[in-house]
Amino acid sequence: MTTKLKGIAASNGVAIAKAYKLVDPDLSFKTQSITDIDAEKGRLDAAFVASKEDLTKIKAKAVENLGAEEAEVFEAHITILSDPEMIDSIKKQIEDEKVNAETALKAITDNFIALFEGMTDNAYMQERAADIRDVTKRVMSHLLNVNLPNPALIDEQVVIIAKDLTPSDTAQLDRQFVKGFITDLGGRTSHSSIMARTLEIPAVVGTEKATAEIEDGQMVIVDGLHGESFVLPDEALIAEYTKMGEAYAAQKAEWAKLKNEKTISADNVEFMTGANIGTPKDLDGVLENGAEGVGLYRTEFLYMDSNEMPTEDDQFNAYKKVLEGMDGKTVTVRTMDIGGDKELPYLPLPNEENPFLGYRAIRISLDKTEMFRTQLRALLRASVYGNLWIMFPMVATLPEFRAAKKIFEEEKAGLVAKDIAVADNIKLGIMIEIPAAAVLADKFAKELDFFSIGTNDLIQYTMAADRGNERVSYLYQPYSPSILRLIKHTIDSAHKEGKFVAVCGEMGGDPIAVPLLMGLGLDEFSMSATSILQARSLIKKLEVSKMQELATKALDLDTTDEVVELVKAYTN
Amino acid sequence: MTTKLKGIAASNGVAIAKAYKLVDPDLSFKTQSITDIDAEKGRLDAAFVASKEDLTKIKAKAVENLGAEEAEVFEAHITILSDPEMIDSIKKQIEDEKVNAETALKAITDNFIALFEGMTDNAYMQERAADIRDVTKRVMSHLLNVNLPNPALIDEQVVIIAKDLTPSDTAQLDRQFVKGFITDLGGRTSHSSIMARTLEIPAVVGTEKATAEIEDGQMVIVDGLHGESFVLPDEALIAEYTKMGEAYAAQKAEWAKLKNEKTISADNVEFMTGANIGTPKDLDGVLENGAEGVGLYRTEFLYMDSNEMPTEDDQFNAYKKVLEGMDGKTVTVRTMDIGGDKELPYLPLPNEENPFLGYRAIRISLDKTEMFRTQLRALLRASVYGNLWIMFPMVATLPEFRAAKKIFEEEKAGLVAKDIAVADNIKLGIMIEIPAAAVLADKFAKELDFFSIGTNDLIQYTMAADRGNERVSYLYQPYSPSILRLIKHTIDSAHKEGKFVAVCGEMGGDPIAVPLLMGLGLDEFSMSATSILQARSLIKKLEVSKMQELATKALDLDTTDEVVELVKAYTN
Repeated sequence: MTTKLKGIAASNGVAIAKAYKLVDPDLSFKTQSITDIDAEKGRLDAAFVASKEDLTKIKAKAVENLGAEEAEVFEAHITILSDPEMIDSIKKQIEDEKVNAETALKAITDNFIALFEGMTDNAYMQERAADIRDVTKRVMSHLLNVNLPNPALIDEQVVIIAKDLTPSDTAQLDRQFVKGFITDLGGRTSHSSIMARTLEIPAVVGTEKATAEIEDGQMVIVDGLHGESFVLPDEALIAEYTKMGEAYAAQKAEWAKLKNEKTISADNVEFMTGANIGTPKDLDGVLENGAEGVGLYRTEFLYMDSNEMPTEDDQFNAYKKVLEGMDGKTVTVRTMDIGGDKELPYLPLPNEENPFLGYRAIRISLDKTEMFRTQLRALLRASVYGNLWIMFPMVATLPEFRAAKKIFEEEKAGLVAKDIAVADNIKLGIMIEIPAAAVLADKFAKELDFFSIGTNDLIQYTMAADRGNERVSYLYQPYSPSILRLIKHTIDSAHKEGKFVAVCGEMGGDPIAVPLLMGLGLDEFSMSATSILQARSLIKKLEVSKMQELATKALDLDTTDEVVELVKAYTN
Repeated sequence: MTTKLKGIAASNGVAIAKAYKLVDPDLSFKTQSITDIDAEKGRLDAAFVASKEDLTKIKAKAVENLGAEEAEVFEAHITILSDPEMIDSIKKQIEDEKVNAETALKAITDNFIALFEGMTDNAYMQERAADIRDVTKRVMSHLLNVNLPNPALIDEQVVIIAKDLTPSDTAQLDRQFVKGFITDLGGRTSHSSIMARTLEIPAVVGTEKATAEIEDGQMVIVDGLHGESFVLPDEALIAEYTKMGEAYAAQKAEWAKLKNEKTISADNVEFMTGANIGTPKDLDGVLENGAEGVGLYRTEFLYMDSNEMPTEDDQFNAYKKVLEGMDGKTVTVRTMDIGGDKELPYLPLPNEENPFLGYRAIRISLDKTEMFRTQLRALLRASVYGNLWIMFPMVATLPEFRAAKKIFEEEKAGLVAKDIAVADNIKLGIMIEIPAAAVLADKFAKELDFFSIGTNDLIQYTMAADRGNERVSYLYQPYSPSILRLIKHTIDSAHKEGKFVAVCGEMGGDPIAVPLLMGLGLDEFSMSATSILQARSLIKKLEVSKMQELATKALDLDTTDEVVELVKAYTN
């Protein structure tokens, strides 16, 4: 019988394939006294050999699909398995304590892990602890004869079923075979969802019970358009969803034709559609999807993907790569947005009761100015390779912007004095994500070049509701008239001074938000690269004059629900 | 030589007296093997006897100064000391382990504490654990022959020096002898500060180093007007500050004359000055200071001061007492504002990453409606004893207000159907403390009777800065033009619909804010009772027409500093 699982539509499209459960198996065991020590040692040897075989295969696949760098982690795992000290210690434990191999394995590896994890000031050792944990899991699975999922070895079309997907899970997936995701947890902004959109595969997240209800190998349908999935569908259902998938594919093919077109409304008003990126690697997707610029380059990944503070040259190289890759198109770089939920191993931050209301982003940059100056110098040096805009995150007051701008000017003058080339046309702006800045947008607009509205945070603070907290998630209301009014004031204030306004939060590519933002007069919509062509297609169908009428009415409505209804009435 | 310590001016006035350090002494000790077991048992007996003597004296003082109920905790401590099981266990430990009395005392009491604390679902046992901790401290101090501060025994004029003061510290203080506070920690809204204002004694908090720099018994000056304190002042300084203290006292006497006057500006516009209260006990201060109403009754203390959910009758009695006590003057009751930083022992709330952006106040009330309905029934039943206004905290959207109002109407109808008397003129309103509600104030104003602006939270969310987090405390800017604009929109929206607006946050009694709020057209200023007469005096000196001019200019300034300067220019 077919079972239906509802969830959140996290990435568009339809997939029909066998389930592949990416779920940690039960690796519990009983401690047993043993008499035949040699037999037990033999079991251990066999488990080590089998684990090494697994990892050698996985590594080869990873090199092929993901590149040598990504595959290094598996080499590290093989090295651990080849370390004579490790296996000898476990064998000695079997001998000394007369216990089964499982017990000895756990005792010894727990020791190593505790030792490495104790070195809290050494990020390298911390990683080794994680490696030993992974390797132990694999050896244990062979001892217990249970199946450990090996996502890197998938060689047929599957839909991944998981509680939630971590970055290391998704790094191993071969997009040739993985056709969709269904997860228990997560929302539209969780890693699984962002990854699915980047890979352009359908995903339904937050089903709460996918891993409980779906068995490995069962046929499943993922309907990422409506946030639904089906287990063991019958012929008729498969036919229906195959058709839906084809229709979506056809639509995507239509959208693809817009790749080299401009973003112009039905009544001939031109907009910009830009992409949000995290690293230079994302450029391929940006160019493939015909972005007219990078509307948000989140530089914190440069800091987060590293075990130490990135040097000025590391940063310069990354910024240069993006600026060159965009070939003269605008690249809007956001300075470091650390803090809140983003931490750095080498920059200890205070524990805070409310980190989202705490020490983060520009607040850190204006306090630890050396870090900030290094980033600005790297940006200034890279500026000659393209069209650079710089924006500061989490600005609440004018003095904060002025202080940041002053530091920027100082670093610029410093480089110029050393005869280092810097561009003359760098624009400076701020993120509008704190209500105070939106309310004072008219004052800010006189002193800067552009705004970029970070709707995710702006909504969170305006509604006083943590967007990661499920109990108050009903208050995450992008279309609330209160949010629309703050956006309108921001846009009107900028335009009065001849300045530019982008949106770079989730709203930038959202089909309900796009008509409203067109009507409010937004200049640039920046979003995940894979949403660009769909947004461009939508904008081409709509008339700005009509959307202005829509926006004016929406601003005067009472509730979010009324706004959504109105948008639907105006766009269907 | 005189030392100067700077801090935060937390409560007005000047005090000159000897320092009394309320600081936990060093109770560390060494474990020692002993041979003379009887001598060691004798030391323990002596320490128990001395502790019991202390507590008997303290209890008698507490009964006299604070009443029998507050003194009960000391009776509980005496009972613990009289428990034969306790002292016998410690003696047995001395005998069995041949250790000194300190070591045995710690081993046994740690055991009891762990046992009681382990009963996490039993608030009574949790409290017993705290009692044993207190008693152990006292016995240990006698064993080690160090001085444990006994604030309840203070019998001469002193200034209390402490890291920070807890509610249980302040409960023991006799206001006859305690002339001022100087603390290391805290800000204007910390417990020490609120307590000092309630007791009307000067306080300087947040000096960072008072407990390190000041010795017990040294003469100190507390200047709560300017946030400064002096250790070992010379004659000239004492004379200067004595004069300043007298001038302040004279000013207070002038203010006291305004007790029965109305709050009318120099150009004859009438305002209301109300008091913020937490319990019916606060009524004395309210009446003494001539409040024209209760602008904020924080009902959560009713919930927090109890080990179980207060019953409908408990609540009814408290509300009735306040309504009757105010004798027909307005009493604005805020429904339960739990969550954020306020917890209840009997209502387990989820751990949240950002509790200030989480599940709290009306969000809990609309979810756990039984609790909310009980509170509303208690309020409705009490409504016939006075002039009741009810407001809902943390409302962000119109549907939330409508849902709360619907529940109110249902409970009202339920009581009416049972022939229980309820008032006909109860007004319903919301706190304006979330930016979304301020932005949509025009919509809210059509559906409710009044707003009360909770400036503390409104500033926190508008600036995206936790007001308890020192690293971002520079962003707590009440006079920021962004905050003033949100207040203006709130007041204008209310008045357009003929509705009433109060401010009940810290700004309500703040001498910089009062002129601005007069100019913005505020109807009621609600504040700590002890600030009312000063505010009334200030309002009587100012002209509304001039303050309107001030407010109009302030709304168009760039920064908080500019606003403060302008206010000073207009009021000096």
